[in-house]
Amino acid sequence: MKAEIIGVGTELLLGQIANTNAQYLSGELAEIGVNVYFHTVVGDNPSRLADAIKQAEKRADLLIFTGGLGPTKDDLTKEIIAGHLQREMETDNDAWEKIQDYFKRTGRYMTANNEKQARVIIGAKVLPNEHGMAPGMFIKEGPCFYMLLPGPPHEMKPMFRTYGRQAIIDQLETVDCIESRVLRFFNIGEAEIAERLSDIIDAQTNPTVAPLAGDGEVTIRLTARSDSKDKAVAMLNDIEKQIQEKAGEHFYGYNDTSLMAELLKVLENRELTIAAAESLTGGLFQSEMTSVVGVSTMLLGGIVCYSNEAKVKLCDVKPETLEKYGAVSEQCAIELAENVRMSLNADIGISFTGAAGPDSLEGHPAGTVWIGMSFKDRESKAILAKMAGTRNGNRRRSVKMGCYYLLKELKELDKK
Amino acid sequence: MKAEIIGVGTELLLGQIANTNAQYLSGELAEIGVNVYFHTVVGDNPSRLADAIKQAEKRADLLIFTGGLGPTKDDLTKEIIAGHLQREMETDNDAWEKIQDYFKRTGRYMTANNEKQARVIIGAKVLPNEHGMAPGMFIKEGPCFYMLLPGPPHEMKPMFRTYGRQAIIDQLETVDCIESRVLRFFNIGEAEIAERLSDIIDAQTNPTVAPLAGDGEVTIRLTARSDSKDKAVAMLNDIEKQIQEKAGEHFYGYNDTSLMAELLKVLENRELTIAAAESLTGGLFQSEMTSVVGVSTMLLGGIVCYSNEAKVKLCDVKPETLEKYGAVSEQCAIELAENVRMSLNADIGISFTGAAGPDSLEGHPAGTVWIGMSFKDRESKAILAKMAGTRNGNRRRSVKMGCYYLLKELKELDKK
Repeated sequence: MKAEIIGVGTELLLGQIANTNAQYLSGELAEIGVNVYFHTVVGDNPSRLADAIKQAEKRADLLIFTGGLGPTKDDLTKEIIAGHLQREMETDNDAWEKIQDYFKRTGRYMTANNEKQARVIIGAKVLPNEHGMAPGMFIKEGPCFYMLLPGPPHEMKPMFRTYGRQAIIDQLETVDCIESRVLRFFNIGEAEIAERLSDIIDAQTNPTVAPLAGDGEVTIRLTARSDSKDKAVAMLNDIEKQIQEKAGEHFYGYNDTSLMAELLKVLENRELTIAAAESLTGGLFQSEMTSVVGVSTMLLGGIVCYSNEAKVKLCDVKPETLEKYGAVSEQCAIELAENVRMSLNADIGISFTGAAGPDSLEGHPAGTVWIGMSFKDRESKAILAKMAGTRNGNRRRSVKMGCYYLLKELKELDKK
Repeated sequence: MKAEIIGVGTELLLGQIANTNAQYLSGELAEIGVNVYFHTVVGDNPSRLADAIKQAEKRADLLIFTGGLGPTKDDLTKEIIAGHLQREMETDNDAWEKIQDYFKRTGRYMTANNEKQARVIIGAKVLPNEHGMAPGMFIKEGPCFYMLLPGPPHEMKPMFRTYGRQAIIDQLETVDCIESRVLRFFNIGEAEIAERLSDIIDAQTNPTVAPLAGDGEVTIRLTARSDSKDKAVAMLNDIEKQIQEKAGEHFYGYNDTSLMAELLKVLENRELTIAAAESLTGGLFQSEMTSVVGVSTMLLGGIVCYSNEAKVKLCDVKPETLEKYGAVSEQCAIELAENVRMSLNADIGISFTGAAGPDSLEGHPAGTVWIGMSFKDRESKAILAKMAGTRNGNRRRSVKMGCYYLLKELKELDKK
């Protein structure tokens, strides 16, 4: 089965939002072995949308539409598709009841245009919307399948995961079993990893080996096809072994993990607590940690000391340290890490202090960052990282560097 | 001029990344009056890329390609376009020197495949890459223009802004002057604002009026065309006045501002300093504030008190308060805001404490959040916000709510 994902909405063509729906659906379809050869984005324009449908029918047998099911008059995806397929529309009772009920529960004001959202194409399998009002649809007509999904990602994703995905799987004549695995690397460039792996990349057919750089990391996606899951997994294991031999020292995890998630795993396994003192990162390290459910046994908290005043008042950094060495210094990083650790009696203290940019700070160029680490049972240390990104790129990279070096430190502890 | 943006890269079709390049370019093109009617994404596949080029030539006269200029063998955009246009390639000396120089400066290891990046199509205007290695290109051939840009956004955006945009403007026969303005609203739903503005939206032709919901906000984009800038601006002023009359109490700012940016403006104008104590937001409020350049005169810092221990140890919350009222309480929010303000001698203290989710906390359902505010010269207060999003949706919305209510509070101060 070949799919094309058609995003409908002038807001996409005006650049107001990115087409993250196509990204999500592509990942989901890859997992169930449906090839996606094209994404298309078209505006809220009847004739251009109709043209896009005809074009897609020539090169795909599954057309997935996102957007244009909303309450306003420029939402016209289902109307155009109904016309194209020469079908009528009707009100879906379940959806209509749900809409009325929502307004009753929240006490919000229901407007007349909300009823339009409950209209569906006759003969469509209706996909319930558990996070919004407009239901989705799945239609078979001639050689093609048509799936209509809402535009807001927080409605579209659960609808696809719960109902859409299975509707597609039911139509697949499963031939191959497809297994994918993403390997994640840090502190190595894309060209260097591609050269180290050039023999493997040149020889690839099945499994495929696809490197990709982004956000200061390199990932390599491996995809194997076979007639059984076991065989596909064995193929992945074999090629991964070859890759790990050539670049394993930069590898840190699989699939959609992150350096932060890997750090949290290690902290959880060893029952370690952490506290942080953040200057240039301004709370980003702790905020990213807090975004994970169940972090409360590990992250005690910490301080944000964006100003030097806060470094002294909240974290007892000695004024002499700031005078003599400055805030962008090994000494300041170590005092911050030690003091924040002790103030919360944590096992680990981490600190970030440096010049985020765009300007230099205390004579240090933007991107000069000291990361301090303090431990209960061993000497403190600080690491100097130099980066050349934007202000927020440097802040994000600092957080990743902190996770990376702390992970290294904890793993070295293991070896001893 | 009509443009089509063609993203090239199998990583897009596998869902490894979102096509944020198309979003950025669409916004830039809208500003200079170039209509974008389609986005296309195609993989690293010679024949499908060639098909996409032929298709785009039928419906656009400016084809902008992103991606596929990199060092690896699956990067083939310029090779396919050269073939399609029947042109040869040559090494661009400036680009080649820059690549060699980069490796000399950073001491990194240069691989053989880096030379491929300096190859350009003969006759193309070369667009220098100031943040990476592969140069871009701009080509006129027959009735069409072709622009080739690199895939990594941090290379593509500055290249387009510095060189690509002007190359397009030079080709425009300017007829109309186009002015756009985005109005931003908070705490009102899309359907409600659409109903309030239904007369205006129904009657729109020029200026156009396009509402869009996302991330808990509604924006309305106004676009006017006229033969002079002054006339277009007057048309925007006129329609904005009508909209403000109907929904102005929810309006908070223009274009790409944010609630945080608006708050910072007010703090800066009044020379006020702020400190924060964050439980469920875990540093997100301060991190978002720190992402803005020049915030150091306003944000002194604060604490992250994700654990109750940290609330007591770092922010002097009375253990009795936690015992009697719990962490998710008005009393705790007010103590946090007052104590963090006083510990740094700031003008304003703000605090966030509540249940981020997915689980309830102390019997309060996920999404129950208290926001505390403390001021030097008036009584403290706390506001209860109820939300129904995911854990991180609730954390982000809490930060927005904090900005929104603090802005309201500071503006009310004005009136007195």
